Amino acid sequence: MSKQVVLGIDIGGTNTVYGLIGKDGNVYHYKDIPTKGSKPIEDLIYRLDSSLSSIMSQNSEFELAGIGIGAPNGNHYTGMIQDPPNLSWGNVDVVNIFKERFNCNVDLTNDANAAALGEKHYGIANNMNDFVVITLGTGLGSGIFSGGKLIYGHDGFAGEMGHMPIDDDGRECNCGNRGCLEAYASASGIKKTIKYFLDKTPNDEFLIRINGDKVDGLLLDSEFDKGNEVAQYIYSYTGKKLGQGLAQVATLLSPEAFIFYGGFSNAGHRILEPAKKSMDRHLINGHAGKIELLASGLPQGQAGILGAASLIWSS
Amino acid sequence: MSKQVVLGIDIGGTNTVYGLIGKDGNVYHYKDIPTKGSKPIEDLIYRLDSSLSSIMSQNSEFELAGIGIGAPNGNHYTGMIQDPPNLSWGNVDVVNIFKERFNCNVDLTNDANAAALGEKHYGIANNMNDFVVITLGTGLGSGIFSGGKLIYGHDGFAGEMGHMPIDDDGRECNCGNRGCLEAYASASGIKKTIKYFLDKTPNDEFLIRINGDKVDGLLLDSEFDKGNEVAQYIYSYTGKKLGQGLAQVATLLSPEAFIFYGGFSNAGHRILEPAKKSMDRHLINGHAGKIELLASGLPQGQAGILGAASLIWSS
Repeated sequence: MSKQVVLGIDIGGTNTVYGLIGKDGNVYHYKDIPTKGSKPIEDLIYRLDSSLSSIMSQNSEFELAGIGIGAPNGNHYTGMIQDPPNLSWGNVDVVNIFKERFNCNVDLTNDANAAALGEKHYGIANNMNDFVVITLGTGLGSGIFSGGKLIYGHDGFAGEMGHMPIDDDGRECNCGNRGCLEAYASASGIKKTIKYFLDKTPNDEFLIRINGDKVDGLLLDSEFDKGNEVAQYIYSYTGKKLGQGLAQVATLLSPEAFIFYGGFSNAGHRILEPAKKSMDRHLINGHAGKIELLASGLPQGQAGILGAASLIWSS
Repeated sequence: MSKQVVLGIDIGGTNTVYGLIGKDGNVYHYKDIPTKGSKPIEDLIYRLDSSLSSIMSQNSEFELAGIGIGAPNGNHYTGMIQDPPNLSWGNVDVVNIFKERFNCNVDLTNDANAAALGEKHYGIANNMNDFVVITLGTGLGSGIFSGGKLIYGHDGFAGEMGHMPIDDDGRECNCGNRGCLEAYASASGIKKTIKYFLDKTPNDEFLIRINGDKVDGLLLDSEFDKGNEVAQYIYSYTGKKLGQGLAQVATLLSPEAFIFYGGFSNAGHRILEPAKKSMDRHLINGHAGKIELLASGLPQGQAGILGAASLIWSS
């Protein structure tokens, strides 16, 4: 008997993960390949196509029901990836390109919305109608469910929580504005924080060690756990800023929970405890203490492809 | 032939307005009475009942299809008004009290949501699916439509835009927190601004004149129009802060427009121009310049009762 599967793809700035996903959420042939964002998107599509052909020819029981894609700046309304950061593609009509190549249903949303759909259909948010998934990685993304539905806004670009201004005269963000949440609460934000602390204490050994091109999260976590005061201060500072942003969103949307996903969310309680404290302090009385901060329970990297696949399964 | 009407009620801290409303949005017997919030809610209900009985007995063609209520802290999910500010009622099971008294369908939402429903069904937002109605009065309230539906949050308390923190170390708000948008962009916020400016220039004649228990909006507007620099600075300061809050909401929800309603929104362009400038400055590139700030086109005071009535008409 044939088994219907959807190809779920989560395109990231560095890596692209994909897998074949059954309606029950089972993931077959999960893979992780470099995106190679400096080459045209056709290069990525060619590699996906080869891999898919090989999988399908070796598994004749599979029948492709469609392709769901999550991508940075992926617009559900237009079917385009629009000028994604860290990728050289400009505007790409990705839904039509995939449709022509694979001759099946194709749907697109942005990466954070895909993660939110994954949590709703197959994860911790299964019984929630009002929640926000926050992807913590190089940047900070968010996918928002309200009343059981994803919030897209009038143009498909809602959910840019990383660029909410939390401090009018705050630090410069990569987007050109000042005081965006992402400039504090993300891997790139922590990098800025390390630099900021280094300016104050240029001889601190740990700060010198961790001040690299990329923040070494494992080192930061292990030093935190050993009681390194600087590592602890970095997380308490970052958590405090994150909590300010959570309070803004919670005041507006009153979600049941914030769910954290992505590499930098592995910091777990180290960042979520100060974030919760700061959030509750900034909330009006009725809200404080009522909103949970949760870690995604899905396997690392799978919320995005599960959610992307659900675009097809739920259509 | 009998004509079905809904009693739309908008309960305010000072006055309560009501009217009989046809499905077409025609308003019959519009009235404005004092709420008398220091007395039990039964006092208000008694007066509404007398007025309604008198209207109905004089207009035998009317048939009551239900009652829709907008009220501060009115919770659509529980049917309760929960500890409303400026009213001594504590928690009131208003939907059941009205049902018992009037023996008809009764529905409730909060005052800002009622105004948003009014704009959606009978006003300027008729063709919009994503917009935010902001009520500017003593405080700042908001009702949010996203994807064509009101956002209630998991507990019915979404939309507290007035209590979004825009400045971590900002001025004290009546809610007990610091830096809430309402502490700047509302009549009570402007009162604080006047006091703040008076501390700096205690001999300014205009500031002394306008520093009363209640801010005289007409005086402020007319002095602004005459070119009074202090009046102009008050609005540009207030607009700048309002714009910060709008940018936060727009970054998250990407609405088509913000629609302003309520007494203090009569300031119109005097506040909306600096607010738009400030909002656009705080938005990420893709959003700036795309979101409109509009004044409600509905007759003063009617958005709330029209929206409250639509709870019944659209159910």
